[in-house]
This record gives sequence, C-alpha cells and structure tokens, in this order.
Amino acid sequence: MPNDLLIEQIVRAAILEDIGRGADITTDSILSEQIVARGSIIARQRGVVAGQRAARLTFALLDPRVGYEILADDGAEIDARAPIARLSGPARTILTGERTALNFLSHLSGVATATRLLVERIGSHRARLVCTRKTTPGLRTLERSAVVVGGGSLHRYGLDDAVLIKDNHIMLAGGVGAAIAAVREKIGHTTTVEVEVDTLEQLREAIELPIDALLLDNMPVEMLRQAVAIVAGRVLTEASGAVTPENVASIAATGVDLISSGWITHSAPALDLGLDIEATSEKRRA
Amino acid sequence: MPNDLLIEQIVRAAILEDIGRGADITTDSILSEQIVARGSIIARQRGVVAGQRAARLTFALLDPRVGYEILADDGAEIDARAPIARLSGPARTILTGERTALNFLSHLSGVATATRLLVERIGSHRARLVCTRKTTPGLRTLERSAVVVGGGSLHRYGLDDAVLIKDNHIMLAGGVGAAIAAVREKIGHTTTVEVEVDTLEQLREAIELPIDALLLDNMPVEMLRQAVAIVAGRVLTEASGAVTPENVASIAATGVDLISSGWITHSAPALDLGLDIEATSEKRRA
Amino acid sequence: MPNDLLIEQIVRAAILEDIGRGADITTDSILSEQIVARGSIIARQRGVVAGQRAARLTFALLDPRVGYEILADDGAEIDARAPIARLSGPARTILTGERTALNFLSHLSGVATATRLLVERIGSHRARLVCTRKTTPGLRTLERSAVVVGGGSLHRYGLDDAVLIKDNHIMLAGGVGAAIAAVREKIGHTTTVEVEVDTLEQLREAIELPIDALLLDNMPVEMLRQAVAIVAGRVLTEASGAVTPENVASIAATGVDLISSGWITHSAPALDLGLDIEATSEKRRA
Amino acid sequence: MPNDLLIEQIVRAAILEDIGRGADITTDSILSEQIVARGSIIARQRGVVAGQRAARLTFALLDPRVGYEILADDGAEIDARAPIARLSGPARTILTGERTALNFLSHLSGVATATRLLVERIGSHRARLVCTRKTTPGLRTLERSAVVVGGGSLHRYGLDDAVLIKDNHIMLAGGVGAAIAAVREKIGHTTTVEVEVDTLEQLREAIELPIDALLLDNMPVEMLRQAVAIVAGRVLTEASGAVTPENVASIAATGVDLISSGWITHSAPALDLGLDIEATSEKRRA
Amino acid sequence: MPNDLLIEQIVRAAILEDIGRGADITTDSILSEQIVARGSIIARQRGVVAGQRAARLTFALLDPRVGYEILADDGAEIDARAPIARLSGPARTILTGERTALNFLSHLSGVATATRLLVERIGSHRARLVCTRKTTPGLRTLERSAVVVGGGSLHRYGLDDAVLIKDNHIMLAGGVGAAIAAVREKIGHTTTVEVEVDTLEQLREAIELPIDALLLDNMPVEMLRQAVAIVAGRVLTEASGAVTPENVASIAATGVDLISSGWITHSAPALDLGLDIEATSEKRRA
Amino acid sequence: MPNDLLIEQIVRAAILEDIGRGADITTDSILSEQIVARGSIIARQRGVVAGQRAARLTFALLDPRVGYEILADDGAEIDARAPIARLSGPARTILTGERTALNFLSHLSGVATATRLLVERIGSHRARLVCTRKTTPGLRTLERSAVVVGGGSLHRYGLDDAVLIKDNHIMLAGGVGAAIAAVREKIGHTTTVEVEVDTLEQLREAIELPIDALLLDNMPVEMLRQAVAIVAGRVLTEASGAVTPENVASIAATGVDLISSGWITHSAPALDLGLDIEATSEKRRA
Repeated sequence: MPNDLLIEQIVRAAILEDIGRGADITTDSILSEQIVARGSIIARQRGVVAGQRAARLTFALLDPRVGYEILADDGAEIDARAPIARLSGPARTILTGERTALNFLSHLSGVATATRLLVERIGSHRARLVCTRKTTPGLRTLERSAVVVGGGSLHRYGLDDAVLIKDNHIMLAGGVGAAIAAVREKIGHTTTVEVEVDTLEQLREAIELPIDALLLDNMPVEMLRQAVAIVAGRVLTEASGAVTPENVASIAATGVDLISSGWITHSAPALDLGLDIEATSEKRRA
Repeated sequence: MPNDLLIEQIVRAAILEDIGRGADITTDSILSEQIVARGSIIARQRGVVAGQRAARLTFALLDPRVGYEILADDGAEIDARAPIARLSGPARTILTGERTALNFLSHLSGVATATRLLVERIGSHRARLVCTRKTTPGLRTLERSAVVVGGGSLHRYGLDDAVLIKDNHIMLAGGVGAAIAAVREKIGHTTTVEVEVDTLEQLREAIELPIDALLLDNMPVEMLRQAVAIVAGRVLTEASGAVTPENVASIAATGVDLISSGWITHSAPALDLGLDIEATSEKRRA
Repeated sequence: MPNDLLIEQIVRAAILEDIGRGADITTDSILSEQIVARGSIIARQRGVVAGQRAARLTFALLDPRVGYEILADDGAEIDARAPIARLSGPARTILTGERTALNFLSHLSGVATATRLLVERIGSHRARLVCTRKTTPGLRTLERSAVVVGGGSLHRYGLDDAVLIKDNHIMLAGGVGAAIAAVREKIGHTTTVEVEVDTLEQLREAIELPIDALLLDNMPVEMLRQAVAIVAGRVLTEASGAVTPENVASIAATGVDLISSGWITHSAPALDLGLDIEATSEKRRA
Repeated sequence: MPNDLLIEQIVRAAILEDIGRGADITTDSILSEQIVARGSIIARQRGVVAGQRAARLTFALLDPRVGYEILADDGAEIDARAPIARLSGPARTILTGERTALNFLSHLSGVATATRLLVERIGSHRARLVCTRKTTPGLRTLERSAVVVGGGSLHRYGLDDAVLIKDNHIMLAGGVGAAIAAVREKIGHTTTVEVEVDTLEQLREAIELPIDALLLDNMPVEMLRQAVAIVAGRVLTEASGAVTPENVASIAATGVDLISSGWITHSAPALDLGLDIEATSEKRRA
Repeated sequence: MPNDLLIEQIVRAAILEDIGRGADITTDSILSEQIVARGSIIARQRGVVAGQRAARLTFALLDPRVGYEILADDGAEIDARAPIARLSGPARTILTGERTALNFLSHLSGVATATRLLVERIGSHRARLVCTRKTTPGLRTLERSAVVVGGGSLHRYGLDDAVLIKDNHIMLAGGVGAAIAAVREKIGHTTTVEVEVDTLEQLREAIELPIDALLLDNMPVEMLRQAVAIVAGRVLTEASGAVTPENVASIAATGVDLISSGWITHSAPALDLGLDIEATSEKRRA
Repeated sequence: MPNDLLIEQIVRAAILEDIGRGADITTDSILSEQIVARGSIIARQRGVVAGQRAARLTFALLDPRVGYEILADDGAEIDARAPIARLSGPARTILTGERTALNFLSHLSGVATATRLLVERIGSHRARLVCTRKTTPGLRTLERSAVVVGGGSLHRYGLDDAVLIKDNHIMLAGGVGAAIAAVREKIGHTTTVEVEVDTLEQLREAIELPIDALLLDNMPVEMLRQAVAIVAGRVLTEASGAVTPENVASIAATGVDLISSGWITHSAPALDLGLDIEATSEKRRA
C-alpha cells in the first residue's frame, strides 16, 4: 500500500484539477462556512472496494477537520446500497471534495472488482493473476494497490526494477542468447530476468539460458499446455495476451504459474458510487 | 486542445512512473546507444484516435531527436491494422517510451471511440453529447480533449467555471429559490447557472427562476419528454444518469438539448494499439 | 475565496523568496528560540482589508504554533491606527514572517481599497465594477478575491473559461460573424460569448449575432449612452478603457451593465500597514 | 539580471494562471494553426522599459517558433507610441501569450519608470536610491532587476544575505549593543550589518559599535542633516520612510548615502502598453 | 545510466542552490555577454571519471549554446593533469556553471574511484562489489551510476524493489520463518528475498527457507568462510559490514558472491578537479 | 539553522528516493500496522552531531505520530555508544524511515566532526575556519549548518550574495583594477568584495583597491606570513587551498583571519550511526 507521502501529489493534483483557480463557486455561494454536515458514500452496485486512502486524503487536504470513517476496507466485497465510508464536518468541504474522492474510489474499486472477477474464475488453479504496465498514466501506484486488494499479484513496477526481454529486444540484439548475456552482465543480484516467447521453438531455446521466467505471448490454450509441459517447472511461466473473464479459467487450467491482464487496469469499468448528505446544524467554529 | 505546456507535467509524471529511479534496464543493457530504429504505432481494432499530442510529447521529453510523424490525426476513424504514427530515431528511446505513449493513446482513443459511438447513436437528433466531471484523476484536460475529437461537447471543467446546483445544495440552502439567489449575487456575468431537478414539480419551480439550464436527473424517457415540453426552449435541458449506448437514441428522441455521460470518461475500454519496430542501422551520432 | 490548498504554493514561494537559502540571520542570531511575543498588525491609513488568508497562512507555514487572530475581516473598512490582526507565539517566527505577511496584506488591501473607491463612485447606478486579466503575474486568484471583498465583481478568470472576441480575432477571422460562428461551434453550453466593439457600426452588426455581452472599448461617454440605447437590454454591455476614479461615475450614468478596470489590479497603491510587537516572556517550550 | 532558469517557473506559473486547465478557447476556435502573424508591442505612455526577458520567455515557453525581437532594451527610455518589441510566428501563440507578456512588461516597466523618476530628482546628489523588501510576493527577483535598469541600486535581497537590526530586535535583545554582539558572533565575514535608529541619541550609541551602515528611520530632513554630520562618513547612512517624488530631492540634499523606497516596488503604477497585430499569411508548417 | 529527464531536477536544484535568487554577480558585473571562452576541466589527481552527464546538463540548462565535449567517458581511468572535458561558449555561463559542474564531477568521480579501488583489490576472486542504500540524500541514482562505472554492481535501489529482511524484522515478526512466509505471500514473482544473518546458527535456519540470498552481517573472515561452505552455492552470499580497502581482499578470498560497501558512497573522498579557461574573442551574437 | 520549510523538499525527495513508487515491501509485509516500537539512534564512533532537524523531519513527514526526542543536540560531542535520539511510534514507520534519517545524520555529523577537528587544531590562533562552495549538490544549506555547529564559520552562500573575483575574472576583465571597478559600480551597499591573489605582487596591487578581503590562493606558509604582514590588517585575509588536518595549525600560525576548507564538506567521512529497536506492544489505534 503506497505511503500517503507518495500519493499526496496525485491527490493534490486531482483536487486542483477540479477546483481550478478559484473555488467551488456553487457551494461557497450557497452555504455558509458554519454549516456542518454528515454524509455517507454508498455503493450503487456490487463490487470490491479500493481507494479508501486516496479518498480520505482528498478531504484531509481540503480541510483536516473533516472526519472520514472507513466502513468497508480496501478489498471488502460490498453489495449495492452498502455504505463504505461515513463523513462528517464542514458541509462546504464535503461537497467540494465529493467528486474527486468518488472519482478515485470508483476507478480503483472498478480495478479491484475486475481483478476479483478474474481471480475467482481462476479458482483453485495454481495460477496467480498479475497486472501489467498497461495502467492509466499517473495512477500506476494506486492501480497496483487496487489489483492487490482485489486478489491479484504484482508484476514488475516499471522499466527499472526487473528485466523483461521482448521480441523487439531479441530482434535488435541479434538473438535471445545475446540479449540475456548482455543483461546478466549489467544487472544486480536482486533483479530477475523474464523472456517473452511466441513459439515453442523460441521457448526451447530460451529455457536453456539463465532466466527466471518465461512470458508466453498470445499462445492458444493448447500451446500453453505444451509449453508448461516443456518447461516442467524449471522457471515460472506467464500466460499473456487477450485474457478475458471468458477464457481465463481455461488458460489457468493449462497449469501456467502466472496470468497477466492489462484489461483489469486499462479497461475495468468504474464502480458506481454516490454520496448521500444531510445537514446537521449550523455549529459555529470555536 | 490543451497547450503542451499544460500537459507537459502530466506526461513527465507518466514517464517517470515507468522508468522509475533508474532506467530501462532491459533496453539499455541490450542495445547500444548508436542503434537507430523505425517503428509504427498500429491499431489492433477499429476506433477513433486521440492522444497524439501526449504520445508525441512522451518521446520528445525522452529525447528530442526522436521523430514522431502523425499518420492519423486526433479524431480520425481508423480500422484495425491502420498505422497511426511513424517513429524514427534512437532505438533505445523508442523502446523506453513505447509503453507510456501507448498508455496515453489507448486510454484516450478509448474515450474518443466511446464518445463517437454515442454521438452516432444520437444521430440527427438535436442533442449534443457532453462529458461530466466523472473523469480519471489527473487526466481531465486530456479526456475532455478526447471527448471533443470524438464528437462530443464540453460541460463545465470543474467547480470554479460554472454553477451547477444539485439536490444537496438545494436541501442545505432550504430551497431552490434561495440557492439561485445566493449564487446570482456572487457570480460574475460570464458564469452560467444550471440546476438539477429530479421531478417535474421541481422543474416547474426552477423554470421560473433566473437560470440558464436544467439538469434532468435520472428521469425516465417519458418524463424527459414531458420536461422538454414544459421547458419549451426557455432554457437548455440536459438529460443525465445511466446513459448507455443502448438507451441514448431514445433519450435523444425526447428532444433534450444535452445528454451527459460519465461512462465515456470513466469506463470507456482502452483501444488496443501496438508498436512494430525495425532496426535500421548503427548510425553513429554526429 | 480561494481554498488554502490553492494559495499555499503562492505563499510558500513568497516566504522562500524572503528567507532565501538560509534563515533570518538577524533574528536568529539575536533572539533565543524560547522568546514568546505578541504583536498587532496595524493600519497606517484608511482602507479596505484584504489578504487575511494569505497572511495567516504565511505564519502557519513557518510555524503552526503562531496564533493569528483576525480583527478585521476581508472587506472591512478600517481607519488609520486600527489593528487588523493579533499575533502571538515564538518571537522569531513573528519577525521572520512579518514582511511577507505585510506584503500580501498591503498589496491586496490596496486592490480592495481601490475597488471600493470606484464602487462607491458608481453609487446607485446599475453598473457593476468588474476586474480584468490585467493582474500581477502569479497573484490573479488573490487579486480577484480582493476585488470581490472590495465590492467588485468578476470577469472571466482567464483564456479558458469564457470567450472574449477582440479586434485582433475579428480581423484575423475575416469578420465578426465568422468569428462568432467558429466559437459557437466549439464551446460548451456553459461558456458565454462576449464581443469587443469600437464603433456603433460594429455594435449594430454584433448585436444581431448570438452573443451574451458586448465590450464597448474606449468609447466616449456620449457614445456609450448611444450604445446602451441601441442594445436596449438584449445583451449585457461592458464599458472598458481608461476608467479612473474621476470618470467612473459619468460612465456609470450611461446605463452600462458593467465597467471593467485594470487599474484596480495593476496600479492600486499598496495600503500602508505595520507590525507592532512586544515580548511577553521567555517561556520554555514543553 | 536573473538567469532564465530562475524566472522560468515564475513565467510558467503566470502563463498557466491565464490559460488555466484548457486553452485559449477564443483564439483556438477562431484561428487555424497555420495562420502566421506579426505584431508589435507599443508603449502608450512615456516610461522606462523593463521585463523584456520575462516577456520573451512567455512566448518561448508557449511555442519556441515565436520570434521576439527586442527593440528597446531594459532601461531604455521610450516615448508614447514607441515600439518596444517585434513579434512574429503562429498567430495563435501571439494572441494567447499577449496578456501575460504585457502584464510582466507593464508592471516591471512601471517599477523602472518610478525608479527613474526618483533617481532623476536626486540628480547630482551623492545619494543612491535603493529598493526594499516591500516587493510584490513572488516577483522580487524581477522587481529588483527593474529597479536596477531604472537606475536604482540594491539593498539586501532577503532575510539571509545581510543583517538589518530593527527596533523590534533591539527591544527584544535588550539593547543595540547586545544585538550587534550577538550578530557579529554568528555571521560570516561577507555579511554586513546595518542598524535602524529613530533618534540622534540612538544614532550616537550605534555609531560607536562595529556596524557597516545606519538606517535613519522616518527622520525629518533637518534631523537627517544632523545625523549625517554626526556620522561624518564613518559608516553609510540610509534615509528611509515615506520617500516620495516630492521630497526625495530635499532628502538627498542632506548628504545621506542611500535613500530607500518601498513605493517604487509596491505602488508604482503600471506602464500602459499594447500589442498591435497583423496577419501575414496562412503558411503551412513543414 | 539514468535518463536526463530523471536527473534534470537534481541538476536544476543544484544550480539554483548556487545562483540563488539573483545571479552570479561577480561574473555578470565584470564580463560582457558577448565574450566567448574556451575551457578545460582538468584532473588534479589520478582517478576514475563519473558524472559527465550531470556536468554537461549543468551547462545545458544554464545556456544551450555552451558546447561540452567529453574527453574522458564515465568509467575512464585518468591521470593527474588529464583533461576530461572541453567547454566552449559564452564566458559568463562557463564561469557561472563551473562550481556546480565540478561539484557533481568531483563527488561522483570520488565514488567511482573508491569503487574501482575495492574492485581491483578483489581482483580475480568471484565476489562482486555492490553498493548499499547508505548514499548521500538526493543523489542515489547518480551515485549508483558512479558505482557501476567504477566497476561495482548494484544492490536493490530502495525499499520497494527487493526484500531484505533484517534483524529488526525478524525480531518483530517472531522468527525468520514467519517473516519469510509473510513476505512470500505478498510479493510479486519478480521480487527477490534476501535475509540478514549474524550467526551460523541463524544461517542454518535460513538456508532451509525459500530465499534468494543471505546477507552475512559483520562476520569475521573465518566465519565467512564457514558460511560459504555451509551455503554451498544454494543461494547467493553477501558479506557486509566494515569493508575497507585493507580487508576487502581477504573477505573476497572466503568465496562469498557479493561484498557490499557503504564506504564507497557515503565516505569516498572527492576527486580533485579544476577548470582552466581562456577568452577567445568578443564575438557578437547573431 | 535553516527553517523546516526550506529543508522539507530536500527531506521529502530523500524519502521518496528510498521508498520509490511503492512502499517498504519488507516491513509492510511482515509487520501489522498496529505494532508500536521504541528505538534509539546510537553513535558507533566518536564525533559531533549534526542533522537532527532533517532526521526528525524524515519521520514526521512519514507519519506525524512518531515521537523523535533529541538526546544530543546539533553540535554536541558524543562518544561511541552514546544515544543521540529516542524514537517511539508505529514500528513500520520507524523501520521505513531509518535509513533516510541515518543517511542525513551520518553525512552531516561527518561534516560537523571534520569541521570540529580543524577548528580544534587552529586552537587559540585568531583564524576562523570557513566553508566553501565545494558542497554536495543539493545539500548546501544543511552542510553549512553542520559546519556552523561544528564550530566553523560561513563564507558566501553562492554566486549572488557576495563578490569573489578569481583569476579567470581578472584575466577576462583585463586586470584586477578593471574587475573591481566594474563590480563596485553594480553591487549594492550590503555586498562585500573579495579578491583572489596567487602572488605577493598581485596582493600589493589589490590591497590598494576598494576591497573587503583577500583570498590567498595556494600560498605556502611562509608566503602567507609575508602576505599577512603586507596587508597589516587593512582587509581580511583568507588562506585557501589544500588545507588538511595536518597543515591547518601552521597555516593558522601565520596570522591569517580566515582559513577555508572544501574538504570538510566534500570529503568528510560519514559518522557511523545505527538504530536499535524494540517492539513494545500491539496497541490498536484509536
């Protein structure tokens, strides 16, 4: 779970994107500063919660006096109508922060919900569902956290923390052996090496080299099964390409160790959430 | 279309999110700095292009020597297999920037494609499709631009550039009349006022007040038709709530002026795109 | 009134501009950290207060232990010698923040005072005094707030939240009709359109087109009167150009809806303010 | 003259403050990207130019293809109607950057013009006119540069680069001797010490101590004359407080070394400038 | 090697730290803008070069017209008096950037030189020298690059890209087994696990668990030898703690795979470098 | 001592450099959020403490609930095994912040310790030890503060707050007289002028000009003695170049006013420090 320090600038930018260069002119014109309100964030459909930290920080940055009580932790499965957070404090701030907080929660809960769906379809197969670098620009750290609370697992964060040798690298290096040799000479001992292969022939070549995992790119289910058999547990196998809720179970049944999905981060539909509010009193501030 | 200055920090953050604190260790270990390559960004499905500016800026920030020729402008409708941009320059930079550029293009083209779908279903009806503030945190300016190139129109940017009085405001203000009066006293003459109504009764009350538009929230098609009849062109009417590709045509047929959709920004599936690359030579830099 | 989040970086930059890369070497050399002081910010001339939020934030960012009690709210009219805020806390911080806080208060109170002067001269005429984009670079959000508390009203914030078609646009577009048509096709329904005219002939052409307001640029008072008569309430009229305390009343008497002034933001003399301080004790911190 | 690197963030913030989160919607709707224009920045009143660097950088940051030719350097005295810069390039960028560039030039030329006025009134007296820390928040480095090109001289930049012991310091330290001793122990050898005195008695005490300059605060002209006589050249003398164009000559005649003015930075009226533009052709970009 | 994009803000901050809020007042007062100069950066002692990228970027950010020709690449071994870079361009910029560029080069070349020294002492032993997280705050990416060009290898970058279980973790987890189990459940498949042990008993317990490497903390040479024998190649072994030029060879002789040193980053003496300059002409700029 | 506001971004960058884009995966996987711990930062060698402010801020930025009690103030001389700070709070935060806090403390205490060593060797001679601009990029404000608590004194901060005319300036200006005249015309009255000389001949020329200090560059001890005699107290004298713990006393004995050392900032070995930790309880948060 990323530290607040890390996501603070993401949340700050999202707030400023919404309040712009002025203020919430609707709210500030209509409500006095003294009105205090209570509100609840309510799910309008079934799903898995994610993004509570970003939502809470949204209100905290606007005004530390807003209380944000989490009723459903990240990872919780909730039904339509379930309240997931309770808010209290200055009515102005609650209304001003509403959309930004809901945008974080809806998007990230959408990611967690899509992840959970695939994970459940994988069921008791050994495969772990992993995310990719196909994330929404600027939100990778939050989306990865949503994948984890949805039950998924992590792939490398970016270009600097693990090696993934793809077809373009192999082509430009003049062969998989040359590519792996070049990489092994440069990387540190904590860095792992994965190689992408498209055919069983490539796989047979790569499996003899010093690697940690194989990415089986866009292979049909039957070919995946053969690949798993050839590898025979010597390195990890990752099935990748066009994974959908429909085909994920049959992919998992091939015995691969990992199934990676870009869909869960780049195309997961947002979870529908809303904010119900009620005024409580016109308490004067001390 | 936002100025490069405006999106530069978004693109910069996205690049740094991917290259992290080090570098593309795979690419830099395997390829020498001198290798020059050409590449093409290719559509893998039908859709509408958006995000060319962010994609081009991605490579420009990494290395100004990369050439990025746009083959399909923002807004162009493209078929599967169509090339949408041609790249040339240092192979390292092309590979390092690939994922970030594709993430921008896929996400924003997804938004444009979803928008175009709804716009086409609205067809010859008068209604304009407008976006909402239900955008992905940090990407609003880019997503709004994608909506426009998809054929949609713009709603207010954020909380500070137009008034939208919602149920919570009315409730806390003690009535729609009080809310509008408070707002009118504060805002400048360039600022317009829109009011959300849920019932025809509320509509009849609001239409007598000094407003510019009415947001008809979650009304069934038949009620929308009545609302349009009552308003009779005195102010703009906006249908909002659960707009889908399936129901957008019948909503448009009610005669509303505007149909707003959060789906096009928060849940549009990414457009599938890829990068094909070829090495050209090991040209030494001057 | 802009949110603290929005002005925090402005205030932070102003503080760092003054304390530079080190510290307040005079104060830190002379006073021990333990000395506690009380102080008052005092007006040295009559005027209207503005900038309390920025001043309070100046001290809060330097040290949250400083108490800043506002004695005259933004918008209050004060006499020479009136205290406008009371400070208490570490003497070092009060002295270090003094100049930055006073710079905000003096400048913004100057803007509010100049605004109030013009507003009072307009008196019971219908015209509202509005600010322009002729603001001090970096301070627009604060200056606009000062205009409002001074009794003025707001024009568009910047280039993106309303349309103002000027002579250069018309000339390059090949006519006012072409310009308005182009704009109307692109903008959203919350965006208003204002057109600048220099002559009554231009006015007669523009008034027939779909616009919301007319900017009457540098017209003599008699021409303004004719313009108002021709427009006859169909759109808003804004008198602009060389508005001074001397001529504002006669401009208002022409019946225009709006009078815009750059002078109130770019040339308002600062309000003279000072800080009186007294040591209280050498209380040791807990 | 501050380096571009130093003022880049000031200029960037000013541009973003004006184009907001979108774009110049008027200009971008009306003009095609291909239109090329020429323009001139013209003085509308007599004055001294300052701010050319910030103005040029404004256009350069928006689009490096804009040419900005300086016709009147910072410090040049210009008449009404004199062109001070010639612009050429994309018409859109010239119109979009116009207001921000003019805001820098008008404000800073106002500062330079006010400075020049005071300097000329000082005439052949030995006194140098110096600025203070009473600057506009965020613009100190630019305003100081404008003071210099106006003929003024510099005081300390901020709290960290020179010592200025004021009445509050002396009061809290328990005497001017204690204050100076404390400071001398802490500061480096490149740091100078100035002490503020209100009376001749204080002056006589301070002049015996190891200081570099005396700030004669709000002394009437006759008292200044006596002060200068007492000091007799042993340290520099600075007259401060309510310096105006009317009284500056008589202050200078007292023989003080320095006269400091806050008015030149916090209250100088903006210099009136405008941009004249003409379209040249619809040249397609390569 | 980190991308320029990544180090740009480090270099920018370093420049601003030196030129402060004004300019190089010495240089700008003395030299006209037109003077062009040539200069050479010269080593004043033997060592290994590192930091060329940061040095070149220093001048490029100040003024893109400065030419910076690298004469000794990062990693090159140079003698005292060897020129390592040749500069040409505006004399002002060369003098203004001199100290910042030299500070980067001296510090990073110091790191590379210290690394090379240890690597050479390890000689033909199998051990690779690796850096630690004991780096200078703010400079980790540059220091790691200097270690690599010095011949060292990389450990994990930070807390997020590999697992290193230390004594405190084991103590708070209630045992090494519990700690490893907890970690293995959370991390992705690209993440490796290293465990710190202080005794051979701990080593025997840890070696049976699913780990990738063992950090042998502060073990005497003889104990290291036993540890290597026990591990027998099943996982990587890393010797850590008080590694010096004096003892590194005997540590390497124990057969460990890795030797980590904080000394090479936190205590490496700077390499002495200087800039020799000569004026060339007073060429007017075009 | 720099204000927290000033060093906050340095500390923030250092933390983010270590936790990267995710989190402390080791700690967060192993420890529950509820575990509370106590810890002590312990010296592992004799030295002088510096950097407490940065270390405390490290933990405060990660989590304000961490208590950080300073046991040895900046400047205190401590023995090996002495505790210098006591920590309490969430165990996760203490472990996550440990390395960053120790990196600040070790580096800055190293600077303070090296400074103290030279100061003690200077002993009762009149010379003050001053730092230079040869600092670690990004850390100048902190290193200068460490020099002061170590007993040293400050030279100019950077290029903008004092004049130091070096050989290159004199050469390009065509003589020391021309250089000083140019500078004197431009600088303000709070700015001092120092000139670098290599020979007694240069010294004799410079001493007749209006300067405040002379930098005696790389002069042997005997020449320094002659230089001091020639200057005879008319300006300050600064010995510079290759100052070491071995020769500093003999340099001081020459009677110079100042001795400047780059070694104390660019090459001071880090002070060895460690963190001892113990769990206290699994207290649930309120």
